Amino acid sequence: MTVRFGVIGTGAIGREHINRITNTLSGGRIVAVTDVNQKAAREVVETFGLDAVVYPDDTSLIADTNVDAVLVTSWGPAHEGSVLKAIDAGKYVFCEKPLATTEEGCMRIVEAEMKHGKRLVQVGFMRRYDSGYVQLKDALDRNEAGEPLMIYCAHRNPDVDEKYTTDMAITDTLVHEIDVLHWLVNDDYQSVQVIFPKRTKRALDHLRDPQVIIFETKTGMHISVEVFVNCKFGYDIQCEVVCEEGTLKLPDVSGVVMKKEGRQGSTLLMDWKRRFIDAYDKELQDFMDSIQASGEPQGPTAWDGYIAATTADACVRAQQSGQRETIASADKPDFYA
Amino acid sequence: MTVRFGVIGTGAIGREHINRITNTLSGGRIVAVTDVNQKAAREVVETFGLDAVVYPDDTSLIADTNVDAVLVTSWGPAHEGSVLKAIDAGKYVFCEKPLATTEEGCMRIVEAEMKHGKRLVQVGFMRRYDSGYVQLKDALDRNEAGEPLMIYCAHRNPDVDEKYTTDMAITDTLVHEIDVLHWLVNDDYQSVQVIFPKRTKRALDHLRDPQVIIFETKTGMHISVEVFVNCKFGYDIQCEVVCEEGTLKLPDVSGVVMKKEGRQGSTLLMDWKRRFIDAYDKELQDFMDSIQASGEPQGPTAWDGYIAATTADACVRAQQSGQRETIASADKPDFYA
Amino acid sequence: MTVRFGVIGTGAIGREHINRITNTLSGGRIVAVTDVNQKAAREVVETFGLDAVVYPDDTSLIADTNVDAVLVTSWGPAHEGSVLKAIDAGKYVFCEKPLATTEEGCMRIVEAEMKHGKRLVQVGFMRRYDSGYVQLKDALDRNEAGEPLMIYCAHRNPDVDEKYTTDMAITDTLVHEIDVLHWLVNDDYQSVQVIFPKRTKRALDHLRDPQVIIFETKTGMHISVEVFVNCKFGYDIQCEVVCEEGTLKLPDVSGVVMKKEGRQGSTLLMDWKRRFIDAYDKELQDFMDSIQASGEPQGPTAWDGYIAATTADACVRAQQSGQRETIASADKPDFYA
Amino acid sequence: MTVRFGVIGTGAIGREHINRITNTLSGGRIVAVTDVNQKAAREVVETFGLDAVVYPDDTSLIADTNVDAVLVTSWGPAHEGSVLKAIDAGKYVFCEKPLATTEEGCMRIVEAEMKHGKRLVQVGFMRRYDSGYVQLKDALDRNEAGEPLMIYCAHRNPDVDEKYTTDMAITDTLVHEIDVLHWLVNDDYQSVQVIFPKRTKRALDHLRDPQVIIFETKTGMHISVEVFVNCKFGYDIQCEVVCEEGTLKLPDVSGVVMKKEGRQGSTLLMDWKRRFIDAYDKELQDFMDSIQASGEPQGPTAWDGYIAATTADACVRAQQSGQRETIASADKPDFYA
Ligand SMILES: [Mg+2]
Ligand SMILES: [Mg+2]
Ligand SMILES: [Mg+2]
Ligand SMILES: [Mg+2]
Repeated sequence: MTVRFGVIGTGAIGREHINRITNTLSGGRIVAVTDVNQKAAREVVETFGLDAVVYPDDTSLIADTNVDAVLVTSWGPAHEGSVLKAIDAGKYVFCEKPLATTEEGCMRIVEAEMKHGKRLVQVGFMRRYDSGYVQLKDALDRNEAGEPLMIYCAHRNPDVDEKYTTDMAITDTLVHEIDVLHWLVNDDYQSVQVIFPKRTKRALDHLRDPQVIIFETKTGMHISVEVFVNCKFGYDIQCEVVCEEGTLKLPDVSGVVMKKEGRQGSTLLMDWKRRFIDAYDKELQDFMDSIQASGEPQGPTAWDGYIAATTADACVRAQQSGQRETIASADKPDFYA
Repeated sequence: MTVRFGVIGTGAIGREHINRITNTLSGGRIVAVTDVNQKAAREVVETFGLDAVVYPDDTSLIADTNVDAVLVTSWGPAHEGSVLKAIDAGKYVFCEKPLATTEEGCMRIVEAEMKHGKRLVQVGFMRRYDSGYVQLKDALDRNEAGEPLMIYCAHRNPDVDEKYTTDMAITDTLVHEIDVLHWLVNDDYQSVQVIFPKRTKRALDHLRDPQVIIFETKTGMHISVEVFVNCKFGYDIQCEVVCEEGTLKLPDVSGVVMKKEGRQGSTLLMDWKRRFIDAYDKELQDFMDSIQASGEPQGPTAWDGYIAATTADACVRAQQSGQRETIASADKPDFYA
Repeated sequence: MTVRFGVIGTGAIGREHINRITNTLSGGRIVAVTDVNQKAAREVVETFGLDAVVYPDDTSLIADTNVDAVLVTSWGPAHEGSVLKAIDAGKYVFCEKPLATTEEGCMRIVEAEMKHGKRLVQVGFMRRYDSGYVQLKDALDRNEAGEPLMIYCAHRNPDVDEKYTTDMAITDTLVHEIDVLHWLVNDDYQSVQVIFPKRTKRALDHLRDPQVIIFETKTGMHISVEVFVNCKFGYDIQCEVVCEEGTLKLPDVSGVVMKKEGRQGSTLLMDWKRRFIDAYDKELQDFMDSIQASGEPQGPTAWDGYIAATTADACVRAQQSGQRETIASADKPDFYA
Repeated sequence: MTVRFGVIGTGAIGREHINRITNTLSGGRIVAVTDVNQKAAREVVETFGLDAVVYPDDTSLIADTNVDAVLVTSWGPAHEGSVLKAIDAGKYVFCEKPLATTEEGCMRIVEAEMKHGKRLVQVGFMRRYDSGYVQLKDALDRNEAGEPLMIYCAHRNPDVDEKYTTDMAITDTLVHEIDVLHWLVNDDYQSVQVIFPKRTKRALDHLRDPQVIIFETKTGMHISVEVFVNCKFGYDIQCEVVCEEGTLKLPDVSGVVMKKEGRQGSTLLMDWKRRFIDAYDKELQDFMDSIQASGEPQGPTAWDGYIAATTADACVRAQQSGQRETIASADKPDFYA
């Protein structure tokens, strides 16, 4: 009844998931690993004291009959190939974002999974497991404040390094809002425009920062997301939904309130890892529990991965064109309803 | 040393100011009134027990040598004429918004005042006197969070009556943000676009509600203002400024925090009149005090009235065009620096 | 219809009230002043440009037929004599705390006022006019959270000077809670005990600071008040009422919320004068308005002054005895019901 | 490397811990169970699909060489015997509160553990694992606001059933504050007094509710704890520490902030189980991890169980006497330093 994992990619995020499954969560075990750097793969086995086979590549790892589920934590361009092989072998897949680097790649995975006939794939969009977003979703689903009309979000990091480029504000940062917002309000993206406000002097020269991304949804909802990755003051995730009869706001992280030296207040997180640490645990625990309980993962689907890709593509086009761009995603198959 | 007021227009807002000057504030007295409805004017004198002359029109009232300052609280289209006559007579003027109904009318007043050679006119933009906005302005002026890059605002009313039209979202509602925001950040409006999100079912059919107005300023700042006049839940004014090193948020109105029946929270105002009641008192007290102290009012100027007019005009054009519209205000004369 | 004031005592607080009546409030005028320091009295007339007679003493000032109401802002031991003379002359009195320095002195004033047959005296307990306390009182009077059972308060100052002694924690500081709390919950004090927690190193050696004063009321309510006058961090007034169905908390002073350098929060007041500045204005405006409207002041009565005196006396005994002390106030006369 | 647990007592809390170890946490396994109700024990094995032996009594279960650690979740009076037997057998013990029902019983356990020579016992005081208390403790340990002088707490339940008696306010409810507060501030209790405020009409006749328990610590700190178990409005845990340079407050549970119908606010928990659910997980995970890492549990010790017992005894005496009672705990052995 234990889910036996094969891990493809033993870099930083791979090791975190291995640690999680081995030392924190219940019901999973690492039985196989591979990495383009074989030495790194062997070291991970030793570091975590795993009873796991080191494979030379994803193909051989997936073929291992002891492997129930594959954890895809390699670099982005390699995701599609591994996921398709796993589906082909009828193995479960937990794939970190991106599901594939292109819209077409995502669609190939979607089609492979539908052809297989039941859900195998979960994409690592962890925010849906954050207790704050879960509470917000519950309130929306219970229609506590009426129908949603507008959403205001902010995704703020203290800073980023020199490898972070203007389009990564979409593909690495905004992508979490892209996933979580359409899930929150059960709506689809229609079009997008990107506004570049006055640049912060704190950003490196090659980077447009902050950015404001404005979506219109199919039902006409207005969504505004500020991405500001050199905001200096903290890691700050905001989301407020304005509905027909009231507003609903994502809870802030709570902290000790101190009064001192003429001020009262609390600390903000500076490190994004701590903000969603419980959500990372819960997404993987749920992946395992769902497989055990129903034979299918219940988290973000391959279709959600496809939507993220098509939406992010349109956002990058809108960055470049300065115009409102249409988001032309395919219609959602019944399979994913 | 008492400022002797002549009041032009004894409707609701006129009577409130008369009451304020007579029963709440210090240093002013009503000595003359006029209204197109002479009976109403006479009744006001009786109701408030005023020792005041009832004049047949603004011209004769302004000519009264006992009148030091004119309070213009007639209907909007009449403002320009009264203000110009008052300037011509060298009288001080406190004029409710709009200063004039057209950009050209505002400019005529600006030119008349400059020709007169010293400030006589204050426009009734009371938010600048609200303690919350004053604190926010102080924090910005002290550069507490660095240079401002973005501003998010909301202007929400529980509901409006059937006379409220789509363009009034600009001219009656947004106009307060138009005035207060450029004052807050010492910047000028460059262009504007209007987004109409999904309509609330709570609005009457002829009205687009909510609306989102998006400005760019001359320095590149991004400003987003939600106007939502059938929000049902309360009268709610929000303003957050995102700066290079932090964010600054307009304080909410504080209220008793109650825990009861599984909830904790406080009441919201339902009536806009209570939100800025102290600001209404302070704007008029400051008008009187400034005249006494320096011979010139120190509040919002005729130029601010002009900026409100040109900006509102562009917003209405943007409502109609669906495009980004340029806000082509004249350069600010040194007289108003 | 203007209330003409004679001011007895032109020290700091006297001058503040003179300024308030002259330059801020509506409906009052200073027509006479006196002070043991005649030079100071004359200077005040000049400073504020008053049209006021300078009298050699309270007796002659009270005798002036132009004086409608007397403002007693002399030092505490002189209050009783002036108030009694004013009552004897049938003049209204606004008397700063204490009404008299002894229980017996307060009772003499109460008896004189009852003998006169209508209310003339208001004591300067301004907290009842603070908008936070007014909202809290409203919620209690509307029974929003059920019957009150317990109250937790804190009265914190950043620091005090060397003249501040352990008993002044009662007579100068706690006295504001003594007045406002029995008014809030319509109850009477039964007994009191004082706890001296660990002393702060920030207090001077002669001072016990902080102190916790614990009351039981006639109906059995529990009240705990922390007095902490070298708390360093700010001027902080807290009051929470725990009721049978919920809790109600005095609103904090609202301020700009800033996020910066890993913290979010707002400033606290450091100076007590700013906390109740509106309440000081309102108490005097209400004194004038009530006299105009009903011929009697409606604020804190001579009886409230008596209760403050008997309660403070018992608190000081409890400081010294370390025991629970009974608060033996007389029964409230119907006159003050 | 898996900790193999024997569970003594398969009632509600026993089953929760079994579920936790089996389905949520990492590193533990249930290998043996016993209960005075053998049928219940067998049912638990079936329900959770355990591979576990059902023993007739604690003695035989403890003797099983497969059992590394004993989980004591029987009824209170049976705890002492099982814990002593486990220590005698050199087994680890996680014992739910109370460690023993008497001061003497707790001391016997302390002495047995010291004789054994290393720590075996952890008591189930889960609050020390709550992220809010951990943050508060961190701030105190870092001396962020200076030395603590006073603590204000409240422990409020919506309601209790008819079996709940006046002394259970101490032994079942306050006991959590007793444990967590001396840990928070590294101090010892010196004396206690209990105040019975006006009774709530919502309590059953036999119950004094609310109660206020006032401690003095050895260093002179003042601690006030309100226990109010029919507060109706929610499960509400408050803790504020007033220090020499500032105050520190336990964070409230965060929730979605809703504005609706003239109010803004968030939900309160109604069920105590949800308040500390993460802490329950963490205390057991830490018990297992500490045993693995260092060979000794690091959580609340047998000594902490003894302190809880002696302090609770004094509180019950103070309930009855109405007087301040001395808390005469023994001096802490170096073993527990
Ligand atoms: Mg993830
Ligand atoms: Mg106005
Ligand atoms: Mg006063
Ligand atoms: Mg426990």
